[in-house]
Amino acid sequence: MQLDIAMIGFGHVGRALVRLMQRKSDELRERHNLTWRITGISTGRHGLAADPNGLDVGAALLVVESGGKLDHFHRLPEVRDNLPLIRSGVANTLVELSTLNPQTGQPALDHCRAALDVGMHVVTANKGPLAHGYRELRDRAAVKRRAFFFESTVMDGSPIFAAAREGLQGADLLSFRAILNSTTNFILTAMETGTSFDEAVRQAQAMGVAEADPSNDVDGWDAATKTAVLVNVLMEGDLRPTDVDRTGIRGVTPQMLQAAMAKNQRIKLLCRAWREGDIIKTRVAPEPVSVTDPFALVTKTDSILRLSFDVLPGLTIVEEGAGAETTAFGVLADLLAVARHMAT
Amino acid sequence: MQLDIAMIGFGHVGRALVRLMQRKSDELRERHNLTWRITGISTGRHGLAADPNGLDVGAALLVVESGGKLDHFHRLPEVRDNLPLIRSGVANTLVELSTLNPQTGQPALDHCRAALDVGMHVVTANKGPLAHGYRELRDRAAVKRRAFFFESTVMDGSPIFAAAREGLQGADLLSFRAILNSTTNFILTAMETGTSFDEAVRQAQAMGVAEADPSNDVDGWDAATKTAVLVNVLMEGDLRPTDVDRTGIRGVTPQMLQAAMAKNQRIKLLCRAWREGDIIKTRVAPEPVSVTDPFALVTKTDSILRLSFDVLPGLTIVEEGAGAETTAFGVLADLLAVARHMAT
Repeated sequence: MQLDIAMIGFGHVGRALVRLMQRKSDELRERHNLTWRITGISTGRHGLAADPNGLDVGAALLVVESGGKLDHFHRLPEVRDNLPLIRSGVANTLVELSTLNPQTGQPALDHCRAALDVGMHVVTANKGPLAHGYRELRDRAAVKRRAFFFESTVMDGSPIFAAAREGLQGADLLSFRAILNSTTNFILTAMETGTSFDEAVRQAQAMGVAEADPSNDVDGWDAATKTAVLVNVLMEGDLRPTDVDRTGIRGVTPQMLQAAMAKNQRIKLLCRAWREGDIIKTRVAPEPVSVTDPFALVTKTDSILRLSFDVLPGLTIVEEGAGAETTAFGVLADLLAVARHMAT
Repeated sequence: MQLDIAMIGFGHVGRALVRLMQRKSDELRERHNLTWRITGISTGRHGLAADPNGLDVGAALLVVESGGKLDHFHRLPEVRDNLPLIRSGVANTLVELSTLNPQTGQPALDHCRAALDVGMHVVTANKGPLAHGYRELRDRAAVKRRAFFFESTVMDGSPIFAAAREGLQGADLLSFRAILNSTTNFILTAMETGTSFDEAVRQAQAMGVAEADPSNDVDGWDAATKTAVLVNVLMEGDLRPTDVDRTGIRGVTPQMLQAAMAKNQRIKLLCRAWREGDIIKTRVAPEPVSVTDPFALVTKTDSILRLSFDVLPGLTIVEEGAGAETTAFGVLADLLAVARHMAT
């Protein structure tokens, strides 16, 4: 199968994806019957380029990483924005990597809608569309007989959703508990040694783990969005991030962390969901966990998800070493799933 | 899709499977378009029954659990053994649940071969066929265009192989480390409190965790077989259990376990595989693990598998609460995969 890919977003993840696909190009073709071209790239600060014959991605990487603009590569002068790019027919697959807006899911949600409407497959690493329009997009993809995958929205390339659709059909998810936000986990780990909140945020920013404006992470929005995504996809819920009972970590002090450690506990920003009758309850909040709980061992940018099913009382998945490369792999896994599901 | 199932083996797992399918029957039909009948059951001590119109499984459960024979339900008098049952045409799907022979994989290997040869789908919870004939069976299934699934051979219903085929294509597995044998894990946990090896084995037998002859477990054969299965399926290896460098737990004493605990360590029967150039090395042996390692928290019948890929440095899966029900769910997940893959 030939994938002609339009990428919305070309930051760390997008560029890691292109490098990964270049490195694995022979394997993708020979073992997975997947050939690919990048026929569109839209960026926030480096312009937009589309070419029905495929962009020179090596050159595009060079230009963007040198701070330049992609306009030189652009062959569809009438296309100047994301929606026209999606509707131009230059690509058969959208890879949505734009920046998350947890309150609205936009503009990523509209990008996914538009792509499915014109018959493209959609792979999104952006959680917004799932937290704000999962059912609609899932049903639209089914009607259009197109693929809609989103592995890297939660725990990067860890195969959560792949396992759910292939190996957990027939299991009813009763509850889950998770540490899903790297930035707060990194900050809380740093604060355990007495580092102040502000200094820990600065360290996280210096490491590239936190954004310039860290509020999406430290106020629990990112964790609440991921909680909503898991509930919507795995528990047939229909939640928005604002529906999640949400407390961030601004109220946590080094003293609280050290007092917890003296009691053989750690404090972690936990995401939880559970059923109460027909209702699904959700909460994101800092909570103490015992050092004999695997959750206490999850530090820095690692993440953990413990699922409890009617037929599997405890299934836990832990990811270590998260970064742009592991997120990029999640996108690649989805692209391979597109090729596999759509070739039959 | 209609599955007419022949079960070889009707012990704890087989009976749990039938109960699970009865409980979920409406959901299987309505949500997964799967209808099913059990048209053959072969047991070690309760005889054999086959009926092209479907057996009354409620009655079969009662009879077997009362110590009776199934012969009363048998409608194909010319069929008196497993291979004739498989070749009789009474079923389109084999569920292989017979007892493991780690040295040969038989007779389960021949059951799987025969079933694929006559065009049946094969789901096996028996590890033997994968440790002794994975490549052959995989290729035979591909030629015959039949399904061949085996989720419950390692970590019961935890979706290891489902995740591998759906979400980890494109990732190269470099190494793994695991605790995969419940019995030895249970025995080592019991011995940590000073219980002798012999007494711990007796406790495990009383709990139904160890066999009357515990040597398959305590000598590391079960762990070595699972190691070979993971290498064969996930690393494209071609190993037999005898190829694994194997040390059991007979040499471990309560004193060694307590000395390790004094050093903030636990001793666990670890399964390992790693690449050295083009060679895959494997080892099963008792090893110390630090209490800050999630492996140290895996006690009783829990299990853990940590996979290291080129694109995901650490992906860990932990299962709690293993038992006949979780193994049965792995078989059901495979049956759902048969219906899904073969309906298209």
